[in-house]
Amino acid sequence: MSKLILAINAGSSSLKFQLIEMPEEKIVTKGLIERIGLKDSVFTIELNGEKIKETKDITDHEEAVNIMLESFKKHGIIDSIYDINGTGHRVVHGGELFPESVYITDEVEKQIESLSELAPLHNPANLMGIRAFRKLLPEIPHVAVFDTSFHQTMPEKSYLYSLPYQYYKDFGIRKYGFHGTSHKYVSQRAADILGKPIEELRIISCHIGNGASIAAIDGGESVDTSMGFTPLAGVTMGTRSGNIDPALIPFIMEKTGKNAEEVLNTLNKESGLLGISGTSSDLRDIQEEAEEGKERAQLALDVFASRIHKYIGSYATRMHGVDVIVFTAGVGENSDAVRAKVLEGLEFMGVYWDAKKNESIHGEEAFINYPHSPVKVIVIPTNEEVMIARDVITFSDLK
Amino acid sequence: MSKLILAINAGSSSLKFQLIEMPEEKIVTKGLIERIGLKDSVFTIELNGEKIKETKDITDHEEAVNIMLESFKKHGIIDSIYDINGTGHRVVHGGELFPESVYITDEVEKQIESLSELAPLHNPANLMGIRAFRKLLPEIPHVAVFDTSFHQTMPEKSYLYSLPYQYYKDFGIRKYGFHGTSHKYVSQRAADILGKPIEELRIISCHIGNGASIAAIDGGESVDTSMGFTPLAGVTMGTRSGNIDPALIPFIMEKTGKNAEEVLNTLNKESGLLGISGTSSDLRDIQEEAEEGKERAQLALDVFASRIHKYIGSYATRMHGVDVIVFTAGVGENSDAVRAKVLEGLEFMGVYWDAKKNESIHGEEAFINYPHSPVKVIVIPTNEEVMIARDVITFSDLK
Repeated sequence: MSKLILAINAGSSSLKFQLIEMPEEKIVTKGLIERIGLKDSVFTIELNGEKIKETKDITDHEEAVNIMLESFKKHGIIDSIYDINGTGHRVVHGGELFPESVYITDEVEKQIESLSELAPLHNPANLMGIRAFRKLLPEIPHVAVFDTSFHQTMPEKSYLYSLPYQYYKDFGIRKYGFHGTSHKYVSQRAADILGKPIEELRIISCHIGNGASIAAIDGGESVDTSMGFTPLAGVTMGTRSGNIDPALIPFIMEKTGKNAEEVLNTLNKESGLLGISGTSSDLRDIQEEAEEGKERAQLALDVFASRIHKYIGSYATRMHGVDVIVFTAGVGENSDAVRAKVLEGLEFMGVYWDAKKNESIHGEEAFINYPHSPVKVIVIPTNEEVMIARDVITFSDLK
Repeated sequence: MSKLILAINAGSSSLKFQLIEMPEEKIVTKGLIERIGLKDSVFTIELNGEKIKETKDITDHEEAVNIMLESFKKHGIIDSIYDINGTGHRVVHGGELFPESVYITDEVEKQIESLSELAPLHNPANLMGIRAFRKLLPEIPHVAVFDTSFHQTMPEKSYLYSLPYQYYKDFGIRKYGFHGTSHKYVSQRAADILGKPIEELRIISCHIGNGASIAAIDGGESVDTSMGFTPLAGVTMGTRSGNIDPALIPFIMEKTGKNAEEVLNTLNKESGLLGISGTSSDLRDIQEEAEEGKERAQLALDVFASRIHKYIGSYATRMHGVDVIVFTAGVGENSDAVRAKVLEGLEFMGVYWDAKKNESIHGEEAFINYPHSPVKVIVIPTNEEVMIARDVITFSDLK
């Protein structure tokens, strides 16, 4: 029998939802509540391809969830709240405690809270969503799905920094990696499309959105990824610097008079594409400006693509070769220009891609390699919500 | 006619010298003066394979140079100081001012001093040596050879960080790269051995000593390198962390109560092999301990080799393929175990190496690839002093 699963992504003043019929993976409705706790909160819901928007003050996440449930009833999506069979919550940081999705108990809530130190902006907000749902729908299972879980298979040589070992033991300092739900989804999808067991594939997954991370997935398991202890590390992003010489932090502090937290803020919010171009963190703007001949936009584009390009080689080497390269998320799915730069010159490792085909693909699932290419290159729209729903129904009472 | 050139590497309390007959590149003598400015300074000189050691108080670099010159005369190496035709000085940081070696004038001294901010531990010490030699041997040419010059050919997309662009313009924040003299020497030597024009070769040079850096050398020009704004960046080193998530610096500050400079000190002096193993920064010790079954030593070794391994893939991709991989410096020349781990699984990019041959090579120049391998792998002992001497004699009055 079909089950209705709610996939939830809660921010400190927002709540994204998607109601999915499982195992059909059919999206029944989806929407977003913004400005929770502020004046003029906005509730948006999509029904039959149409967006309905309401503005009203919403004090907290509990009220937001109530309004959402009432709206489901009002629009005839459900008859009663008991039609919903379970919820799955995106939680950013699961540390080493959660190598898998987990049924949420009071104890699990406490553990997620204890990890807030590792994701101070995200875990407390994710918990607000969890608490509201557990209170309003106490009879159904709620599951936490962590951005970090998929990468918990990384071996020590990948996740350990070359720092005093005690920092790992005492403070949990290691590479965790993020976007795990997306990397897991697209790697499984790639295996499905190819009709091969994922155990036999070496996949490089490029999740390139406003945040971006690359993962090396060997036999279905993440063995390395570009983000680190936080989502700041790795490649150039919209506003994030990615890796820099760590010695630059004290140097920038001295030069600008900023303290360490302020420099970190600059690295997170004023760097990346925005920092280099000086104009925008949005790749579409940068591409437009580059086409108009603006040098710094071109430079931002070159740096951005070059960093990802180098990770491809790094991770192919990490797995002693590669069978599939996947592009996903906003930029990965839509920017043929970035994909072209990332794929440039990879013939030496068996990547033969079709420039014309690549140019024609924007957002849809498609191969962009030549048929004879030993390495397949696939554009796959990511779907973290479906992945969350899949994890939710694996819990026994929903199977 | 042959020329006698002195290659000098001056530290704040030390001075290394090598007297080289050019163009024969014959080492006439070499030695080291340590503990300058401290009690019981030590002067060591090598003559006909024998080391002669003297202990006496040496107040400053000028006195050290005087003692060295007197010793040359005493041992019959030169008749008078006028037999020396020129000196070449290793200078760590040439910033963007010195894309090539340069004849030292008062103006050049000032410029080197102005770059001290970028290398506060090194440039002032290098200048002490330069000033002593210019004072005592005012009639001959003195040449500065910079660790950074060789990498000045890197394009913007390699050297620019994804930081606010103004940081580059205002503070000179960019990737400079180091070990340039060594990377240049071994890449030229590789072309010589292969009998091919360097313009036709894509070389990955692995300078792995206590400090370590990898360089991508395309057609004889450095196009990318692993060290950055400072020599802290890139791969794991003896005591240096290499790249880490930059967000870790504020986190470590908060956790340990250290300030930014103290954390930087930890990253430079208590990390790397030493940090992971907890016992030693010397790879030979680590290898011994790993063989004895000590887990953290094994882990240090795995992390160390893995980081270099991934750079090989990254730089092969950077150059759209690779023709030659070179290993040099203490570890690169001598540790077959590290080379084996770095080369593991590179067959997918055309690297077929001979495990037995590799095991037999310790310090001598040799190919370690199979003859049929498209990519050649060569162990080449580095020789920065000869490279310095070569640069010195290119200056017109010495040709």
